[in-house]
Amino acid sequence: MTKTPLSLLGLGAMGTALARAWLAAGHPLTAWNRTPGKADGLGADVAATPADAVAANRLVVLCLLNDASVEQTLAGVDLAGKDLVDLTTGTPAQARARAAWARERGARFLDGGIMAVPPMIGHPRSGAYVFYSGSGALFEDHRRTLAVPAGTNYVGEDPGFAALHDVALLSAMYGMFAGITHAFALIRDEDIAPTAFAPLLVDWLTAMAPHVHRTAEHLESGNHAEGVVSNLAMQVASARTLTDTAAGQGVSPELITPFLSLMERHVADGHGDEDGAGLVARL
Amino acid sequence: MTKTPLSLLGLGAMGTALARAWLAAGHPLTAWNRTPGKADGLGADVAATPADAVAANRLVVLCLLNDASVEQTLAGVDLAGKDLVDLTTGTPAQARARAAWARERGARFLDGGIMAVPPMIGHPRSGAYVFYSGSGALFEDHRRTLAVPAGTNYVGEDPGFAALHDVALLSAMYGMFAGITHAFALIRDEDIAPTAFAPLLVDWLTAMAPHVHRTAEHLESGNHAEGVVSNLAMQVASARTLTDTAAGQGVSPELITPFLSLMERHVADGHGDEDGAGLVARL
Ligand SMILES: NC(=O)c1ccc[n+]([C@@H]2O[C@H](COP(=O)([O-])OP(=O)(O)OC[C@H]3O[C@@H](n4cnc5c(N)ncnc54)[C@H](OP(=O)(O)O)[C@@H]3O)[C@@H](O)[C@H]2O)c1
Ligand SMILES: NC(=O)c1ccc[n+]([C@@H]2O[C@H](COP(=O)([O-])OP(=O)(O)OC[C@H]3O[C@@H](n4cnc5c(N)ncnc54)[C@H](OP(=O)(O)O)[C@@H]3O)[C@@H](O)[C@H]2O)c1
Repeated sequence: MTKTPLSLLGLGAMGTALARAWLAAGHPLTAWNRTPGKADGLGADVAATPADAVAANRLVVLCLLNDASVEQTLAGVDLAGKDLVDLTTGTPAQARARAAWARERGARFLDGGIMAVPPMIGHPRSGAYVFYSGSGALFEDHRRTLAVPAGTNYVGEDPGFAALHDVALLSAMYGMFAGITHAFALIRDEDIAPTAFAPLLVDWLTAMAPHVHRTAEHLESGNHAEGVVSNLAMQVASARTLTDTAAGQGVSPELITPFLSLMERHVADGHGDEDGAGLVARL
Repeated sequence: MTKTPLSLLGLGAMGTALARAWLAAGHPLTAWNRTPGKADGLGADVAATPADAVAANRLVVLCLLNDASVEQTLAGVDLAGKDLVDLTTGTPAQARARAAWARERGARFLDGGIMAVPPMIGHPRSGAYVFYSGSGALFEDHRRTLAVPAGTNYVGEDPGFAALHDVALLSAMYGMFAGITHAFALIRDEDIAPTAFAPLLVDWLTAMAPHVHRTAEHLESGNHAEGVVSNLAMQVASARTLTDTAAGQGVSPELITPFLSLMERHVADGHGDEDGAGLVARL
């Protein structure tokens, strides 16, 4: 089976990983990078300019630093009839504006949000995947090609949805990392080996993550008190134990207080019998 | 084999779950609760006073609201020769003070931090367990009995360590819940079903949690830049995408900004090539 040829603009850490995956799978690849030399030894056709790269193939993938670099790179380039896939991280608003911009220039547009780090790309069992949104027709036409470097999850015609899903998951991850940072800080001056503590943290967070399903059900039903086993009133009562322990260990509570105080405000407003779903509307 | 008889003070949601588990396993149980009637139908011997409950058995388990209620409940009660196991949630400092208090009264003391909600108690496959610290001799003598309601993890002679582990894991969990709350807020006004989004969140958080191991290794080696695939400088560069997306969705960034700004300060101080381990010392 012949493999779809494509062009890739951007050979940073992520772009290079994508390039290697498509080349390894036998896709003819034309690559461009602002700073020359990045394609050396990759086995791709090297384009001298963004316009040359875009002209070479119908399918054009962008993996640049940010949306401003996409703007700069494609300024004045003829995009008529092209299928643009923008894997550059950005906001939903940027993706929507970029989609309208591409449409005005006669191109189909698909935005992507990569849920992986470069070493995971090209390894199907790593769990790496990309959220896609925008032109469903483009996605269907290039589904197999797009699935080469990582799994695909098409989340809708709204070109902002891939970025929204991407940012939502990243935000949740930073919350988890904040909690982990605080937890390690609590034990930093004690005779507890971080590597002995780490498996306890991983197991606990993994066991507690599925609580998300309960929250989702509460958000959909609107009944935030149904089947609650650990209500907010009780959680707020033990919040003091958390901040006192931080103080006792000489640790700033800055990473945990915003959530504790959000729970406190919700309980003060009469929601002590609920679970945390009601907090979502307060932000 | 005869089962060790024990006394339990406190029949709230958690105490009742513990009582049922010990009774179901055939342990003779003497129970006391401040408000009478809570033991009705349980099958336990009911003690009229805390002193009666303590007098009934050598092994005495406490599961009260907080450390102040332990103080009130046991004031003036003869504890000589008793084995006290305090499963009441508290700070490391409270556990250490309570251990000294028990020792002065001639009792051995073990503090416990329960990593479970009541419905998980008595179900070995639920993953429920209790951190224990304090008298290792007491723990060894009653290991089997303590293992009936939930798994056991003895973390050392320092009576504060069970509470410290407990609070550290709870703090990490609240960080994760904060991130989850922010993520759901980002999609709350969009045509994205929370129950469709939930599995994405669970899978992502579960996949990212093992990052903890890298952080632990960095903390032990002191080299926070070793093997970094996603450095802080890059993460800080994309932080703007997170806050801009929150603004675009009309969501207060209060739960994510403290961690983003902690990363920014660390990068500003010249640690852009590192991973997050260095943040632990900044709190
Ligand atoms: N790395 C990850 O873990 C990861 C994960 C998920 C998503 N992403 C996203 O993937 C995209 C690329 O990331 P990366 O890791 O490859 O970053 P990187 O290693 O820093 O590479 C950045 C790339 O953008 C190019 N670039 C920067 N400014 C430009 C401009 N004004 N005009 C043209 N090209 C410009 C750079 O070209 P030069 O070589 O000339 O500097 C380079 O090719 C980003 O949007 C990132 O958020 C990365
Ligand atoms: N439930 C959970 O999910 C969970 C999880 C982990 C740890 N824990 C910990 O387990 C302990 C008990 O929690 P719980 O869920 O059973 O709480 P609960 O349902 O609110 O019960 C509280 C218990 O403490 C008693 N109590 C309160 N103040 C007292 C006082 N001044 N003197 C004597 N007794 C007093 C109550 O007696 P009355 O019946 O007379 O009010 C009741 O037996 C707490 O430290 C909690 O943090 C609970």
